Amino acid sequence: MFETAELKEKMSKCEYEDLLPQLRMALFNLQQKVKKARVPVAVVIAGVSGAGRGNVFNLLNEWMDSRTINNVSLWHLDNDKYPEYRKYWLTTPAQGEISLYFSGWYAPVFDNTNGSLESSVMKAVSFEKALIAGGTKLIKLWLHLSEEDFEKNKKKREKKNKTDPFDEGCKDYKRLKKTASKVIRLTDLSDCRWNIIGCHDKRTRNISVMRILIKNLQQALLEAESVHKEADYVPMKHTVRILDSVDLTKTLESDEYTKQLEEYQNNLYELTIKAYKKGISTVVVFEGWDASGKGGAIRRLVKSVDARIRSVMQVSAPLPYEKSHHYLWRFWNRVPAKGEMTVFDRSWYGRVLVERVDELTTYKDWSSAYEEINSFEAQLCEANIVVVKFWIHISQEEQLKRFKEREALEWKNYKITSDDWHNREKAPRYFDAVEDMLTRTSTEIAPWTIVEGEDKYYARVKVLKTICNALKNKLKEV
Amino acid sequence: MFETAELKEKMSKCEYEDLLPQLRMALFNLQQKVKKARVPVAVVIAGVSGAGRGNVFNLLNEWMDSRTINNVSLWHLDNDKYPEYRKYWLTTPAQGEISLYFSGWYAPVFDNTNGSLESSVMKAVSFEKALIAGGTKLIKLWLHLSEEDFEKNKKKREKKNKTDPFDEGCKDYKRLKKTASKVIRLTDLSDCRWNIIGCHDKRTRNISVMRILIKNLQQALLEAESVHKEADYVPMKHTVRILDSVDLTKTLESDEYTKQLEEYQNNLYELTIKAYKKGISTVVVFEGWDASGKGGAIRRLVKSVDARIRSVMQVSAPLPYEKSHHYLWRFWNRVPAKGEMTVFDRSWYGRVLVERVDELTTYKDWSSAYEEINSFEAQLCEANIVVVKFWIHISQEEQLKRFKEREALEWKNYKITSDDWHNREKAPRYFDAVEDMLTRTSTEIAPWTIVEGEDKYYARVKVLKTICNALKNKLKEV
Repeated sequence: MFETAELKEKMSKCEYEDLLPQLRMALFNLQQKVKKARVPVAVVIAGVSGAGRGNVFNLLNEWMDSRTINNVSLWHLDNDKYPEYRKYWLTTPAQGEISLYFSGWYAPVFDNTNGSLESSVMKAVSFEKALIAGGTKLIKLWLHLSEEDFEKNKKKREKKNKTDPFDEGCKDYKRLKKTASKVIRLTDLSDCRWNIIGCHDKRTRNISVMRILIKNLQQALLEAESVHKEADYVPMKHTVRILDSVDLTKTLESDEYTKQLEEYQNNLYELTIKAYKKGISTVVVFEGWDASGKGGAIRRLVKSVDARIRSVMQVSAPLPYEKSHHYLWRFWNRVPAKGEMTVFDRSWYGRVLVERVDELTTYKDWSSAYEEINSFEAQLCEANIVVVKFWIHISQEEQLKRFKEREALEWKNYKITSDDWHNREKAPRYFDAVEDMLTRTSTEIAPWTIVEGEDKYYARVKVLKTICNALKNKLKEV
Repeated sequence: MFETAELKEKMSKCEYEDLLPQLRMALFNLQQKVKKARVPVAVVIAGVSGAGRGNVFNLLNEWMDSRTINNVSLWHLDNDKYPEYRKYWLTTPAQGEISLYFSGWYAPVFDNTNGSLESSVMKAVSFEKALIAGGTKLIKLWLHLSEEDFEKNKKKREKKNKTDPFDEGCKDYKRLKKTASKVIRLTDLSDCRWNIIGCHDKRTRNISVMRILIKNLQQALLEAESVHKEADYVPMKHTVRILDSVDLTKTLESDEYTKQLEEYQNNLYELTIKAYKKGISTVVVFEGWDASGKGGAIRRLVKSVDARIRSVMQVSAPLPYEKSHHYLWRFWNRVPAKGEMTVFDRSWYGRVLVERVDELTTYKDWSSAYEEINSFEAQLCEANIVVVKFWIHISQEEQLKRFKEREALEWKNYKITSDDWHNREKAPRYFDAVEDMLTRTSTEIAPWTIVEGEDKYYARVKVLKTICNALKNKLKEV
């Protein structure tokens, strides 16, 4: 794998100075085009200590317009309050920006510090796939040194008293090389291969880096321009549907409701305190028809958790700056810290619901979202987060009744807008989308719970009970 | 102070249920108006443990449209990598939003955990003043219980096994009351007084909270509507100006430059590693005329610091979502973590430079910014951050020469826009603004360094040297 990179390729100063200005100008112009085409670009600069990662980092800033470059060096900012990949997600480039990652998500992989190598690699791969699917051009560079050069370099640095003050894992060259070769093999994706760059000679290295970037940015522009001719989407015609089999006659009497509500609220209070103390977090997702009672259920839920350890994210259409990021970006930003609960009033499932139904997203994009969402939720679960997801179901007749009630009541008035009436007309298309969502994202680690919402009392208690049970089970585990 | 609140005021259920709907509707409607008027509102809910802070938190969410409410409970999210107030700044409301703070910045003050009470109080006051000056309506609630009620409540909770799991500082009622009374006295600002609310009876408490909010939101709307008739700004006519006395003949020969540059770069590399290890951070601010050489100086600076511990913020006009926040908000977001360096290519001084000159901000607002900025920088220094500020000065003739050069060179072309030519025309007004800025914000803890920029070599070396010295001095201290 590293054979070519260990050949001692050299370039004369003369040749270098001849090439540099043209390549530099080409790179600069490409950056401007990428910016205009609104392509997000992520570059990972990994490699052997001493091969010049920092140098390349600086040169890229010098060669390009640094105003649209994010320099990301997160290696030591380990905040174990959050799932590992949150910090990488939050620093992904917006459209037209370039994020340069100093080792990035590969730092812990190469150091092999976080659990098994295989599971680290899997996380990296699913993150990269999600980025690529979201339109990001991802470029991975491995700056390589032979053992001889590595040792020479180390001695030179020691002499100058300039050893790498941060790179602890890199002292054992042989081990690093072995790990790197395995990691590179396992993460060499077909749509994003590693670029191995020999760094025996700085000039050769710089020119290689430039050429690779130029080639990749050119590709990115071509990809952005090419119109993907898609096959028309033909929805599955389900003859039996999950939602049709929901028993909407379930009810709860007022007395029983008051009793059970209090019981589960107290129960949940205790459980969330215990969970806080053990560092177990909770993510609760609410999806459902308009006027199905999400708001009321959320209020009862939120009331039973100490205000200091929970928050609610009200999800509506993304703002412009949010929209220039990957759709999961704003949700990663609200993942609960250790021990806390975040309640999502609508969620990332908008990608496969409203965005699909209203054709805000292409078929290609929303259909790849199921996998991305499953991978996202798997990462949450892995970080000791309990994921509970509710679809609150009501009949179309009940919805109509509630819409009319809302219009009549002054203080509920604000809850009903023309959007709600429009969505109602699209109910058949929503039925298809919900069916696919429930089928494809109900996983063993993050299952959907369908809540019979026709009777609000019944629904609210079922929500609380489900969360209590999920927390109880998790607490037993740890 | 707490006498009235300790009277055992009670309200009948009947009266409560009579009042509630009207007040609720009034509050709800006011929230909508505040949203429309784009007034940011911050509410602090502090008080005795058991008085019902969490309860009030929840009720406010229920009474109002929770979609524009941020619930902030930061009490335990202590990340000592950043200055204390960063987390409060980052959660301040945008225009039209309401941030509810569970104790907020008063949690550490009442617990008296962070240093002396006086210095905690000063920080709180200067934070609040900046918010208020920035147009935020700030409302502070103290939910009070008498000792008798506090003890009763505690016993009841203990019986139910529902003691406050987080409130460690609140076990000693007498101590808390004493501290609270002092803190409230010291932070009872004329434009934002504390509201002390007796919580002997929940209904009385709820109605009081509602009435206070209603009154304050009404006030906020009136304030937002009233047009402040301002006295015209009459600029000081300085007969002797700092900038005129800058010696622009200073130069450095090429050989000497190369030698010194390398020396200081190595020097700085060592110093920043040492600083990192000791948790000392650095903020470097670059301001100066267009084409004065900020970019070049920044590149040389950045090159000499390990890429993993520094970042550069390129400051231009705020994006819409940034603009809906206080002008310091986006800078608090980029304050360096412990041990790191952030370089600001232009900065918060935009408030008193471009915003003043181009009349983007009223006289009232930019003239109060000097104090706010000094307080901001004082907080940075207090958090062990070295603040170095450069004004790079060149003559108008030199600027013209450089503009023309840039236009001629293909790869420097992007650096010059019509904005630059427009700014040049406004030079006399900039002279006044710079003069005021240098005079009013050169403090002993964060002084300005004027860099003679006519000769780029000289300027770059002076920048590096100044930062080295500042770091050296700080390292001696600790």
